[in-house]
Amino acid sequence: MNGRRFPVDCERLRRDIERNAQFGAVPTEDGQGRTVLPGTKPNQRAREHLVERMIFADLSVDVDAVGNIVGTWAPEGCDPDAAPVGVGSHLDSVPEGGIFDGPLGVYAGLEAVRAMQDADVSPPRAIQVVSFTGEEGTRFADGVLGSSVAAGQLDVEAALELSDGTQTLGEVLRTIGFHGDSRFDASDLHAWLELHVEQSERLEQMGVPLGVVTTITGTSRLRGTIEGTAEHSGSTKMSERTDALAAASEFVLEMERAAQAEAGADGTAVATVGELSVDPGVVNVIPGTVEFSVDVRDVDGAVIQRLVDRAAETLDALEADRGVETTLARPYEIQPVEMASVCRDAVHGAGSTLGVETADVHSGAGHDTMQVATVTDAGLLFAPSEGGHSHNPLERTYWIDCAVATDVLTTALYTLATDGAGDANRRTKHEHTQ
Amino acid sequence: MNGRRFPVDCERLRRDIERNAQFGAVPTEDGQGRTVLPGTKPNQRAREHLVERMIFADLSVDVDAVGNIVGTWAPEGCDPDAAPVGVGSHLDSVPEGGIFDGPLGVYAGLEAVRAMQDADVSPPRAIQVVSFTGEEGTRFADGVLGSSVAAGQLDVEAALELSDGTQTLGEVLRTIGFHGDSRFDASDLHAWLELHVEQSERLEQMGVPLGVVTTITGTSRLRGTIEGTAEHSGSTKMSERTDALAAASEFVLEMERAAQAEAGADGTAVATVGELSVDPGVVNVIPGTVEFSVDVRDVDGAVIQRLVDRAAETLDALEADRGVETTLARPYEIQPVEMASVCRDAVHGAGSTLGVETADVHSGAGHDTMQVATVTDAGLLFAPSEGGHSHNPLERTYWIDCAVATDVLTTALYTLATDGAGDANRRTKHEHTQ
Repeated sequence: MNGRRFPVDCERLRRDIERNAQFGAVPTEDGQGRTVLPGTKPNQRAREHLVERMIFADLSVDVDAVGNIVGTWAPEGCDPDAAPVGVGSHLDSVPEGGIFDGPLGVYAGLEAVRAMQDADVSPPRAIQVVSFTGEEGTRFADGVLGSSVAAGQLDVEAALELSDGTQTLGEVLRTIGFHGDSRFDASDLHAWLELHVEQSERLEQMGVPLGVVTTITGTSRLRGTIEGTAEHSGSTKMSERTDALAAASEFVLEMERAAQAEAGADGTAVATVGELSVDPGVVNVIPGTVEFSVDVRDVDGAVIQRLVDRAAETLDALEADRGVETTLARPYEIQPVEMASVCRDAVHGAGSTLGVETADVHSGAGHDTMQVATVTDAGLLFAPSEGGHSHNPLERTYWIDCAVATDVLTTALYTLATDGAGDANRRTKHEHTQ
Repeated sequence: MNGRRFPVDCERLRRDIERNAQFGAVPTEDGQGRTVLPGTKPNQRAREHLVERMIFADLSVDVDAVGNIVGTWAPEGCDPDAAPVGVGSHLDSVPEGGIFDGPLGVYAGLEAVRAMQDADVSPPRAIQVVSFTGEEGTRFADGVLGSSVAAGQLDVEAALELSDGTQTLGEVLRTIGFHGDSRFDASDLHAWLELHVEQSERLEQMGVPLGVVTTITGTSRLRGTIEGTAEHSGSTKMSERTDALAAASEFVLEMERAAQAEAGADGTAVATVGELSVDPGVVNVIPGTVEFSVDVRDVDGAVIQRLVDRAAETLDALEADRGVETTLARPYEIQPVEMASVCRDAVHGAGSTLGVETADVHSGAGHDTMQVATVTDAGLLFAPSEGGHSHNPLERTYWIDCAVATDVLTTALYTLATDGAGDANRRTKHEHTQ
């Protein structure tokens, strides 16, 4: 381990995040909220502020064709043939989201570079601080948009044609002045790290300040319908009904039971019926049709498949038992992604060097890193979320936790930036261990 | 029994109903649909057509303050001091409703009068054919609007002030030219009969062409909320969730079970969760809040109360078991109403006279008659609904069943119109046996 400490400046980091929180700020009773959808005015201002801060730190800034912002620090004396190390996250938010989800990772990456500069070190690999476009999936796509392009999972042209119903991504990027020419290619990176807020309470409950993600769970999304018979609530006997909502209620409870059984006491499997609509939805009419979604996740693809199978079996049983007709589709499926051991080791090692306890956790939420991890070694760090709150203004990570996590991130990044450079390995494409 | 037969004209009745079906007609794949909300243009045209048909049959027509239309046939030689007998129903419909629900009862009442006229009889009591305003509760009120005013349950002024959010009932009645001065007072009637479609399959299944309602079920409506915690579907373990929809699903199934248990094999108790909405209703967020309605009905008020109690107990149990917070309100409560034996006997007797099998049934749906029955002796007749379809364009009663039911209605009406007149009882307010 090249473990060493860097003079991370907590106040500088905090000022960056608080300044960023002003863009798209929304009034709230508790906490701090912001709405920063990709390609909007608040997003433009957040991007401009980041570029300004990168230039102030002597990074050379490039904006790629889908608006990913890449600030490169090539320290004096670094090896021009060594693949760079990447670090970053995203600046966009969900509607009325929190101020840490995304910006913490971007500005912690920048702070890591500044701390190394202040320590006057010159790692042999360049470091690239990245802000990906459209991670949240609230506009133009289901999420991880910029990182999908960087990982070659989505074509630049296809991405630019994505529409929110009114405008395309290409149009809004041109409007806000963040439409470059090249494609940032994550497979050119030697390794990648992202610091993100945890969005659950596990670290807080464990009393551990830093999580090291082992696996980002896979996600399957199902969309289904249950069709019964809409009839008068007063003149249709209980014994003569085909009630779509009663059938759907059995389905909801069965998915809950099945996920609880797969998860056991401390497992990672989850299944959620998040959307459910009733037609006609009238007080005196028996529900005729119910439409619903199921979101199934686990670190183990086989468990996801079992839960998806269970959904189909449950609907079959409801057809037999209740006489309803059902449909089920699986429009979205992402396999679980394991983090690279070289990155996980670098983070655990940094924690050890700095006396910061670290713990292996999984990520139940998707992140840009799950795209990057398909083309290079990638690691994901979690800072604790107070009360587990996320995607709302109550989202909070204590500033001390932000600082500690950035401290560990910096040391780990330095480890990776000095890793294997000067070897015969230089400039050859990194041998991706994923 | 003054049982005798009248020359009911099936074709004349059918033409009236089919002509009425043109007002507000909607295009459908199967069946015949219409949308005739109170106070709309189609409602105006339906009303104007009825008035025209009443005048053509020599009835004197009055429109009361809330738009109830009353056509009076005072045959030559009838007793001016005898309280009249009423018959009728309503012309409004639910959105995309059927063509029989309401109009059958109005035009069957008119046909009954015409058949008596054709038979050249002069019953001692006048007969009033009535079309009540706003039975369906799709605009301005929860239903049985005009009959509530006629029964003195709702003030004229309060009724006229009812708003659909844009206009008041008073305004729309003035616009369509059906805003009179007086109040039609149902307590002035000696007795009342309404013929309506059954809206369920019981008569069809029994193979009986005419139902005689014993009791109109009481109805209680509940509105409730279940509040859990909206959290990220990926990062919140199964064991850490407070899922409002899973709790609501238990509630839906428990209400179904409880109503099934009260109803037994052939009972009248029903409970329906017809509305249910999920907030935020997003694929990757655990449902935070669910709002729902429950519609509870039975012929026995004590059973309704037990089901309402069960709803409250179930929510209490969910609070204890799942940590949700719940609310429950009972904004609507109507007690079961028994039909008068004098009216039921008249209908059974008419069936016997005419060789038409009749059967006692209950009404699970509310009707104008349940208001009228609070102030005078009232009876409700059901014609079979093919397949039980109602409140949609598939609603159908065979023309032969319409004719047979009108035949029975006419004879029963004549029985009541000759009942007790000439006694000392004349002009004194009817001694209501309800």
